[in-house]
Amino acid sequence: MTTIALDAMGGDHAPRAEVEGAILAARELGVRILLVGIEATVKQELARHRLRGLTIEVVHAAEVITMTDSPSHAFRRKKESSAHVAARLVKEGHAEALVSMGNTGAVMTVARFVLGTLAAVDRPALAATFPNMKEKVTVILDVGANVDSKPEQIEQFAIMGEIYYRTIWGAKRPRVALLSIGEEEMKGNDLVREAAARIKPLHLNFVGNVEGRDVFRGDVDVIVCDGFIGNIALKISEGLVEHIGGMLKKAINSSLRSQVGYVLSKEAFDSFRKRTDSSEYGGAPLLGVNGITIIGHGRSNSTGVKNAIRVASELCRARFNEKLEKELAASAAAVRA
Amino acid sequence: MTTIALDAMGGDHAPRAEVEGAILAARELGVRILLVGIEATVKQELARHRLRGLTIEVVHAAEVITMTDSPSHAFRRKKESSAHVAARLVKEGHAEALVSMGNTGAVMTVARFVLGTLAAVDRPALAATFPNMKEKVTVILDVGANVDSKPEQIEQFAIMGEIYYRTIWGAKRPRVALLSIGEEEMKGNDLVREAAARIKPLHLNFVGNVEGRDVFRGDVDVIVCDGFIGNIALKISEGLVEHIGGMLKKAINSSLRSQVGYVLSKEAFDSFRKRTDSSEYGGAPLLGVNGITIIGHGRSNSTGVKNAIRVASELCRARFNEKLEKELAASAAAVRA
Repeated sequence: MTTIALDAMGGDHAPRAEVEGAILAARELGVRILLVGIEATVKQELARHRLRGLTIEVVHAAEVITMTDSPSHAFRRKKESSAHVAARLVKEGHAEALVSMGNTGAVMTVARFVLGTLAAVDRPALAATFPNMKEKVTVILDVGANVDSKPEQIEQFAIMGEIYYRTIWGAKRPRVALLSIGEEEMKGNDLVREAAARIKPLHLNFVGNVEGRDVFRGDVDVIVCDGFIGNIALKISEGLVEHIGGMLKKAINSSLRSQVGYVLSKEAFDSFRKRTDSSEYGGAPLLGVNGITIIGHGRSNSTGVKNAIRVASELCRARFNEKLEKELAASAAAVRA
Repeated sequence: MTTIALDAMGGDHAPRAEVEGAILAARELGVRILLVGIEATVKQELARHRLRGLTIEVVHAAEVITMTDSPSHAFRRKKESSAHVAARLVKEGHAEALVSMGNTGAVMTVARFVLGTLAAVDRPALAATFPNMKEKVTVILDVGANVDSKPEQIEQFAIMGEIYYRTIWGAKRPRVALLSIGEEEMKGNDLVREAAARIKPLHLNFVGNVEGRDVFRGDVDVIVCDGFIGNIALKISEGLVEHIGGMLKKAINSSLRSQVGYVLSKEAFDSFRKRTDSSEYGGAPLLGVNGITIIGHGRSNSTGVKNAIRVASELCRARFNEKLEKELAASAAAVRA
């Protein structure tokens, strides 16, 4: 049975969403959960539920990282945080994966330095999932684990992202693309051109460059880019969804003329919210660290937590990191040959 | 009376949208329009309207740049295109501004090389307008006139964008910010840090770095970034609006239970479309070329064309380029002092 170390104190609705998500996961996915957090608080939340038959245990952690802690402060000054303790459980072999809905920067830093990076990996990358028009998903990496990425790092992002997509999203030959722009003569910048030259010879289904508007079209599965650009792409999308949600709400309220109309508009609005809700997609994996790590959105509800646990357990069962090291080594050997 | 050279053959709905937009502009804004394009085609379209009292003339141009022409092909091989002829009218003093709904890359190249760059400007920048949650707009530049921008170019984008915002969008002290990311320790990349160090000493209302999600919040007015990043931000936003529009349409159709509900939902949807419609915002100016240049969206309707002409004429009346050269010189002098 796969064991997941779940940071019970991370999200905006912690520990309630985490505890409920853990219960859903233990019930539906057949995984064992170590709920890591302030013991009294977590147990109090657990006491609200029937737990018979569920493989859930509590592991105490004395400190809590907040959303406003800087990554370095959280990493260096809160060694007994739930994120640290959960990462150490993975490091020491008591769990196979770390799942947290906490402060993304802090959890990335903790995972990276407590677990370390896989030998074949230069830099871990955070992979975000975007719903697309084909009612599938597009995975973009890196979305903020690195800045000023080098061409060889972007190349590794392509390899890592492709294996991740194959493992979790079920495509046999995911289409991999580089994020670029179309206006300029030379189509892209120096980084994109050098990264393309490195990715082309790999045994990937590489389709070349795509533009920003292709992110949602669903014609490609994995899009790689520098972490600075990927983070801006992610945050702009989140900001725009929030903005449009607000505008729609206003428009619906102002056109509220009858109960029937309101109910129908609300249905359309809820369907839109559901389709753009990141909790459906199971969080963002930090690919390339020595231990499966999934960072979910702080706002995640219990379904979001459960889905993050599901992705973590699927990556464990697929022996994702072993696969990754093997394919990175094969790519490196093929390039040298 | 301000004279505008309007590329009549540029947009997806050319020359109809251009001719109708020119008529609206001549009627409402008191400007003179030179409609540049294939004479017979433009005159045929004009014949559908009553023109008495309107200051609209047709200037023949033998060639048409298509949306699929590469910028270099369009610039070098189509010297008699409507964009070239319109740019030459500005260059030779027959018009004060160039307005086109055509191929953005091609029009930028034509404007840049036919009109030239202002002496004080290193690189022209394309400025895009985003509606925000405060029901105002946020201007982002550069969105694709340059890639691999240098810190001193980003500094000039800040100065140009600030004057543009003051002139067109009415804020006395527009808040200027740098687009960056928040996850990393060092908050940004090398370019952002170096650009920030250059912008801070200027006499601007510089508020520091913002993240992607701040683009739509309306807490800042002008956001500067490298053109590669700005273009991705713009295209992702356009792609996402298109995607959400499609999802909403589907959701509304599937929840269509009564005529009342449909009408109400449609109202909400239309209000959303209107708020995200770029034609309300009058196109993107290419700031820093020696002659006011506005590039509108290819999909612009007559209102979009009229609004682009409005922005062009306001920039002319404000003597925008003179102001720009003066302020750039003053900034350079202040930094040297």
